Amino acid sequence: MAQLRGFASAAAQGADIPEVVCFEKQSQWGGQWNFTWRTGMDEHSEPVHSSMYRHLWSNGPKECLEFADYSFDEHFGRPISSYPPRAVLWDYINGRVEGTGLRDWVRFSTAVRTVTPHPISGFLVTSEHLPSQSESTEHFDDVVVATGHFSFPHVPAFEGIESFPGPVMHAHDFRGAEELADKDVLVIGSSYSAEDIGIQAHKLGAASVVFSYRTEPMGFGWPASLEEWPLVRRFQGRTAYFRDGRTRGFDAVILATGYRHHFPFLPQELRLRTANTLYPDRLYKGVAAEETPHLYFLGMQDQWFTFNMFDAQAWLVRDMILDRFAIPAAEVRRRDIQRWLNRMHAIETVREDVEFQADYIRDLIELTDYPMFDLDAVVEIFLEWKHDKQADILTYRDRCYRSVMTQTEAVPHHTPWIEALDDSSAAYLSTAEVPVA
Amino acid sequence: MAQLRGFASAAAQGADIPEVVCFEKQSQWGGQWNFTWRTGMDEHSEPVHSSMYRHLWSNGPKECLEFADYSFDEHFGRPISSYPPRAVLWDYINGRVEGTGLRDWVRFSTAVRTVTPHPISGFLVTSEHLPSQSESTEHFDDVVVATGHFSFPHVPAFEGIESFPGPVMHAHDFRGAEELADKDVLVIGSSYSAEDIGIQAHKLGAASVVFSYRTEPMGFGWPASLEEWPLVRRFQGRTAYFRDGRTRGFDAVILATGYRHHFPFLPQELRLRTANTLYPDRLYKGVAAEETPHLYFLGMQDQWFTFNMFDAQAWLVRDMILDRFAIPAAEVRRRDIQRWLNRMHAIETVREDVEFQADYIRDLIELTDYPMFDLDAVVEIFLEWKHDKQADILTYRDRCYRSVMTQTEAVPHHTPWIEALDDSSAAYLSTAEVPVA
Ligand SMILES: Cc1cc2nc3c(=O)[nH]c(=O)nc-3n(C[C@H](O)[C@H](O)[C@H](O)COP(=O)(O)OP(=O)(O)OC[C@H]3O[C@@H](n4cnc5c(N)ncnc54)[C@H](O)[C@@H]3O)c2cc1C
Ligand SMILES: Cc1cc2nc3c(=O)[nH]c(=O)nc-3n(C[C@H](O)[C@H](O)[C@H](O)COP(=O)(O)OP(=O)(O)OC[C@H]3O[C@@H](n4cnc5c(N)ncnc54)[C@H](O)[C@@H]3O)c2cc1C
Ligand SMILES: NC(=O)c1ccc[n+]([C@@H]2O[C@H](COP(=O)([O-])OP(=O)(O)OC[C@H]3O[C@@H](n4cnc5c(N)ncnc54)[C@H](OP(=O)(O)O)[C@@H]3O)[C@@H](O)[C@H]2O)c1
Ligand SMILES: NC(=O)c1ccc[n+]([C@@H]2O[C@H](COP(=O)([O-])OP(=O)(O)OC[C@H]3O[C@@H](n4cnc5c(N)ncnc54)[C@H](OP(=O)(O)O)[C@@H]3O)[C@@H](O)[C@H]2O)c1
Repeated sequence: MAQLRGFASAAAQGADIPEVVCFEKQSQWGGQWNFTWRTGMDEHSEPVHSSMYRHLWSNGPKECLEFADYSFDEHFGRPISSYPPRAVLWDYINGRVEGTGLRDWVRFSTAVRTVTPHPISGFLVTSEHLPSQSESTEHFDDVVVATGHFSFPHVPAFEGIESFPGPVMHAHDFRGAEELADKDVLVIGSSYSAEDIGIQAHKLGAASVVFSYRTEPMGFGWPASLEEWPLVRRFQGRTAYFRDGRTRGFDAVILATGYRHHFPFLPQELRLRTANTLYPDRLYKGVAAEETPHLYFLGMQDQWFTFNMFDAQAWLVRDMILDRFAIPAAEVRRRDIQRWLNRMHAIETVREDVEFQADYIRDLIELTDYPMFDLDAVVEIFLEWKHDKQADILTYRDRCYRSVMTQTEAVPHHTPWIEALDDSSAAYLSTAEVPVA
Repeated sequence: MAQLRGFASAAAQGADIPEVVCFEKQSQWGGQWNFTWRTGMDEHSEPVHSSMYRHLWSNGPKECLEFADYSFDEHFGRPISSYPPRAVLWDYINGRVEGTGLRDWVRFSTAVRTVTPHPISGFLVTSEHLPSQSESTEHFDDVVVATGHFSFPHVPAFEGIESFPGPVMHAHDFRGAEELADKDVLVIGSSYSAEDIGIQAHKLGAASVVFSYRTEPMGFGWPASLEEWPLVRRFQGRTAYFRDGRTRGFDAVILATGYRHHFPFLPQELRLRTANTLYPDRLYKGVAAEETPHLYFLGMQDQWFTFNMFDAQAWLVRDMILDRFAIPAAEVRRRDIQRWLNRMHAIETVREDVEFQADYIRDLIELTDYPMFDLDAVVEIFLEWKHDKQADILTYRDRCYRSVMTQTEAVPHHTPWIEALDDSSAAYLSTAEVPVA
């Protein structure tokens, strides 16, 4: 959507833009934000893309992801809280593109199957229209890969897990915590998915949650029934054996063990191979494939910033495609990438981590005409957010921030997050929570 | 495995056989019988193939699926019961091929990505070795598709199901009924998966099960907590509204709504499109693609018979490939297919249904050198089995049958099925059940 909007913005300013075709395998746009109740495979036997779930609310303040060219105020017409639920964020990102004619550029329900470099120039893209199962191959001069990287689960095996007598699922397949009520839950992992699924379980009545970390614990001030233990070594029946010698029985296991950057539609040599990191190697300006001209990737970074970073990337990619931004020679590209990698490797504090990504975005915006915004102010919001979470992991979503785009102060939601059990737009936008059926 | 074994059997008799390469995306053979605890996607982000689950036991007497060239007696050295658990059947099918050198013909962990007709003759097969993500394309004269048809779930949507506040999963993703203990469970569908998942839930302590049928109820004599209701119309919260006006609240929903014949690796024009039926149209002798010479499908039929039917098919396909069986002209093929289709459409009774498939297999065996066996006797076992299930759906798996291959009478398992909570080979083959950890 960012890339489409980038081209639309240039077109609105009178630029001559090429034909743009966006292939989207779902029947609606919104990516991760386009929730589905399905798990595993969808109605066309395609892997389900979204990893989101019922009761997923933004886990960062919306003031950090606001678009610089489409504010929350413009969309909602009034201040809202800082941590809206998924449906409300979908509404916001949809609002920027719906009704603008951009749907005509999208082929929905169409999955890209293969992208192969054309022997002379450009790429042959083979796609399948899923409802009709009909395939077609077309030539494109440039290819922008914007398929996300939180959809293909990384699922490590643990000895004995195959006979654990209860649900074992990766965060990707988690669709809601209601089924964890009264259960003793083991969550493996110590990042955002672990944290949020753990507190979702708590919110919806789990008897206990043990988080099991590989590298380090999250260290929040958990309520008494939530604890952090070292990594599981093995399972026997419902009992987990931990590295520190402790054992405990569980009713359910959630593997919040992250995702794989995976591009099954690309030939091996064009696949981006990277861990989840702030600066994947071999992408000039974080977007242009270092060794393959005319191949671009959006959003492949680990994410403090999201929507507005994707925008800045998309605007620059647009300018690369339109030859408004001249891609320099190979050595210059390598030096630029290396400079960012060196800086990344030297990061020691959370502040440096966030500032790194802010500076990266600043660099992008300076190279294109995406509206510059107060990135330093956003860094401060991120740091305050970290602080809020340390202070109280169960109430941080009740805090309010001020927009750096419009200076609007968010207003508290009518219901504290821990009590909010209706995550629909209607309930959120009403003046008081609608009772759940 | 049947196809490999078919070629091996010809080779053992001195036939000159061509190079045979079997691509298997899992790291082990056994297909559905190769259980995995994973759901959704596997470690290589491939859709998980097997739809089986903990505590899955054969749902038909093993005497109906016994290989004509490798008996249960030969494998186990002593009589066993008629309904072994999954691991024991895996052991049996593995036993026929393990240690015979056939592993050398298989490229494990290698998924076929595309099969395209070569402009001159044969096919180009592109496969990916999953651990290394390396792709290669090779030429083959003949292609046998034996990828099964119970892996890609058919998942209809129901109004309101997206906000059902508990687990909603297709039978394909069901991995065991322990999590259904004390729950009120809704199972949609009225075929084998519905039946077995419903009684698994009951066995493992579900509070109640409602089966919801579209066409007709299964009509077994269910225990009091299991009932059959008409189709669900819609959900609101945890409440399901049924076509007959009844409503009820549930904790979990299992969609046992069948599978899709799906061949994402074939070009559209070569895909077999069929419902789950005894005689898919456009397959000569049920195996040879009517319009595409040198393209074969195994096991695409709805199944009374399984292993020995796959064998008979594989032996005939082998003979087609070796030009030992001459494929007749198009009109002859069409007439043959049409004759079977006409007979299928005239089927009125269960007996006719089973006899249809027995006669189909007889036809195949008469055309090749697979050992003929007493198909009529197997038909009678199937009918007795149907009768046993009508008599008592919870004890039918305790019944014993006589092998048509060896005349060996099965012996009762040491534990009635409803009480057997260890489905491992070790527990099954021991003289008494090992207590569960
Ligand atoms: C559980 C979870 C919660 C999150 N919560 C937040 C949050 O609170 N705040 C936040 O800012 N970010 C959050 N994120 C981060 C999220 O990744 C970004 O917000 C954003 O969705 C990334 O956008 P994207 O377009 O790069 O990728 P995605 O949103 O993943 O979209 C990729 C799109 O590509 C399509 N696609 C994939 N393969 C193909 C193909 N072969 N052919 C055609 N189409 C294809 C998909 O259908 C999808 O629509 C969350 C992520 C996850 C997993
Ligand atoms: C839940 C369930 C229970 C069943 N229970 C019984 C029972 O009790 N008794 C009985 O007789 N039958 C049972 N069946 C029927 C079962 O389908 C057959 O027994 C048998 O497994 C079918 O064998 P197959 O080789 O045709 O397919 P499968 O067993 O499905 O094997 C297909 C193989 O193809 C591989 N494959 C798929 N796509 C690719 C690709 N693109 N590249 C490489 N490899 C690929 C898979 O990894 C798999 O190994 C059951 C089926 C299900 C779903
Ligand atoms: N809005 C929300 O509420 C919400 C909820 C969930 C997720 N998200 C978003 O989703 C994205 C993905 O987050 P994520 O947490 O799924 O992925 P992630 O940030 O990449 O974290 C992966 C986690 O898995 C652990 N891990 C990996 N391999 C492991 C192994 N073999 N054994 C044990 N642990 C292992 C890692 O531990 P190490 O530290 O040891 O490497 C790390 O803790 C983020 O953008 C996040 O913001 C948002
Ligand atoms: N060993 C075991 O215990 C075991 C366990 C499970 C499965 N299996 C095997 O697995 C294979 C597959 O069996 P299966 O039962 O999954 O598939 P199946 O036999 O094809 O049955 C599909 C079922 O789904 C129903 N259905 C389809 N669409 C529906 C809709 N929109 N709404 C409601 N119902 C719908 C069908 O109802 P209609 O009648 O209305 O069409 C039918 O009852 C079989 O070979 C079986 O033997 C074995």
